Amino acid sequence: MGSVFDEKDFLACCGSTKFAKEMVVAGPFSTHQDAIHAARNIWFNKVDVNGWLEAFAAHPQIGQTPSRDHKSPIFAQWSKGEQSTALSTSTELTLQELLEWNAHYRGKFGFVFLICASGRSTPEILAELKIRYQNRPIIEFEIAAQEQMKITELRLSKLFSDKADTAPAVKP
Amino acid sequence: MGSVFDEKDFLACCGSTKFAKEMVVAGPFSTHQDAIHAARNIWFNKVDVNGWLEAFAAHPQIGQTPSRDHKSPIFAQWSKGEQSTALSTSTELTLQELLEWNAHYRGKFGFVFLICASGRSTPEILAELKIRYQNRPIIEFEIAAQEQMKITELRLSKLFSDKADTAPAVKP
Repeated sequence: MGSVFDEKDFLACCGSTKFAKEMVVAGPFSTHQDAIHAARNIWFNKVDVNGWLEAFAAHPQIGQTPSRDHKSPIFAQWSKGEQSTALSTSTELTLQELLEWNAHYRGKFGFVFLICASGRSTPEILAELKIRYQNRPIIEFEIAAQEQMKITELRLSKLFSDKADTAPAVKP
Repeated sequence: MGSVFDEKDFLACCGSTKFAKEMVVAGPFSTHQDAIHAARNIWFNKVDVNGWLEAFAAHPQIGQTPSRDHKSPIFAQWSKGEQSTALSTSTELTLQELLEWNAHYRGKFGFVFLICASGRSTPEILAELKIRYQNRPIIEFEIAAQEQMKITELRLSKLFSDKADTAPAVKP
């Protein structure tokens, strides 16, 4: 028998309600690779554009901590962890620049700048933001969805490893 | 001097507020070809995905008449005209099937099925709907945006020809 997760667990990986519901239906998963396989299918083939926007809206601006009243505390905690490299490599000046470019980006595209930030420094993220800002809205929408998927994959792996740490030994 | 249109005129061509505002800024246009050129640039490069969804939401379901209280009476009137071939080639049965497939489509993609219906029969439209229903949501989102642009082009041409019919002769 595979690991059993609920809608709340999957919402911590990706803020689309449809995604979380479909993951519950598709599970339980024997391995985290199975979960990632199902997640890719659901995210790219079943979740509609409104669901993508819903998932994007669950993210804080890069460089900012999620609000304390985020609907998923684990989402908020993971988001903070993923940005730790960025935060440790930022100065007041680069953070200010990031904030300004985030505002430009949101003004042009209508959603938050999404990047799988794990291990990336603030200067790297800023450079990427400035390049992606040039894109047409529909192109950028797809890139953001791909970044969301990378974030989801990392978080699904965490979900499985956290479960392994806390699960009691179960006989088949 | 070119024809002067206001935001309301452009909203009748495409229901995105951003599109209509940017068209006013880009105008006045000497010819309707100039207007179409500007419209393509604005629609594909400047209007974001929320604006696309806003424009899609202004359309009635294909096979249905726009509601009487549509915010743009010209939009509603043009929409009816564009569907005249479809309506004249439909039977109660095909209209019922169109209604059902529209509901499937909206359930999968989260927006109304959009097609430049001018001159197309109901069986043709139904066949197209069933093929497009197979698409991934993001692919279908782009196709719908291209159909919206075709509708916008037809309507911009009407806007210019209507203006020519009613405009007083002006000396250069």
